[in-house]
Amino acid sequence: HWMRGGTYGWKAARKGFVFIGWTNTTANMPTWGAVNSKLGNNPLVIAVPNQGEAIVLDMAMSQYSYGMLEFYQLKNQQLPVQGGFTTDGTLTTDPGSILKSQRILPVGYWKGAGLSLLLDILATILSGGLSVAGISKQPAEISASQVYIAIALSKLKNFGTISSAITQILADYHNSIPEKESKILYPGEKVMSVRKENTANGIPVLKSIWEEIQSL
Amino acid sequence: HWMRGGTYGWKAARKGFVFIGWTNTTANMPTWGAVNSKLGNNPLVIAVPNQGEAIVLDMAMSQYSYGMLEFYQLKNQQLPVQGGFTTDGTLTTDPGSILKSQRILPVGYWKGAGLSLLLDILATILSGGLSVAGISKQPAEISASQVYIAIALSKLKNFGTISSAITQILADYHNSIPEKESKILYPGEKVMSVRKENTANGIPVLKSIWEEIQSL
Repeated sequence: HWMRGGTYGWKAARKGFVFIGWTNTTANMPTWGAVNSKLGNNPLVIAVPNQGEAIVLDMAMSQYSYGMLEFYQLKNQQLPVQGGFTTDGTLTTDPGSILKSQRILPVGYWKGAGLSLLLDILATILSGGLSVAGISKQPAEISASQVYIAIALSKLKNFGTISSAITQILADYHNSIPEKESKILYPGEKVMSVRKENTANGIPVLKSIWEEIQSL
Repeated sequence: HWMRGGTYGWKAARKGFVFIGWTNTTANMPTWGAVNSKLGNNPLVIAVPNQGEAIVLDMAMSQYSYGMLEFYQLKNQQLPVQGGFTTDGTLTTDPGSILKSQRILPVGYWKGAGLSLLLDILATILSGGLSVAGISKQPAEISASQVYIAIALSKLKNFGTISSAITQILADYHNSIPEKESKILYPGEKVMSVRKENTANGIPVLKSIWEEIQSL
């Protein structure tokens, strides 16, 4: 398991590299039209340097992780958007029904399913490692195949104009008109602000968790 | 406009290369939570050689194209899954409502929106060309930025085992249990069989279209 994959993106992008990387996983998601899990949710990270920080997309190919479904179930809430199927094969926003059917939804239905398959094939053949099918025969999610691509922007002929090109794209993006009274953020923008706040003021921890840690 | 982007994938993969390519487009899709279009649907192609043919994923970042919405509207049908918003901001399967609001849905809601933004940034900075914002200032969808990556599998140390690795992945994938009585296909599998059939038997054309062509 590659844990917090976005970290690789942050590290590379802060040093001036574009980062494109992904991993395969154990089979945990059915392809579109199927009932059993033959695909991994195969997280993909794309990171780009920006003003000493980074724009970092860190997305799995499932709309929600099983952990997120459990989170919504514990809070007794419906998912914001459809996240999988009931055992009857109906699309649903109910986390409990999806945990029961084990049929989580690929992002974009058939599209994320296709992308997941291709990410598995590429990771497997480019690394010479195990495929989703191979990992799934292991006792746990181990020996995954991973791809790490770093592109040195400083070697490009147009290096001098890249920073301002990114600034212009983000400015245009930030000119999106929000439907509600909230600012439209780019991938990684919130992570960055939370990290800055926590670095300055400390990391908030639930009192009950902190007491549990201290009692260890 | 790069027309049928998948063609580049087929060409490269049939010569033994992995192909990863994408383009940006004019702004035609709102980001998640926004009402105006600041993102392109930025189609992505990933192709892998397979037995002299290829596995080819060709996906735009919008769940449906505007052309597909018009197609469903002409047939007076609802979309198979949610494809965008009504003018009131409600997710809908009604093609007419989405054509009216011009709010098509990114694949995987916030996830495809993020991927679309990153594909635009990468295409723009790697090619030194126009961004979605820049293309949108042109009189039409021209001067798009595009990325073409070809990886020569024959140069890899594990080249000798790649073909069988792909065969195994596809065999496992084909072992998916379909919910309905239909075979689960991998991306490009149907394109390939249709092309073989049409190459042998000719391309079916609607009689009315053929008569229109002959009358030109």
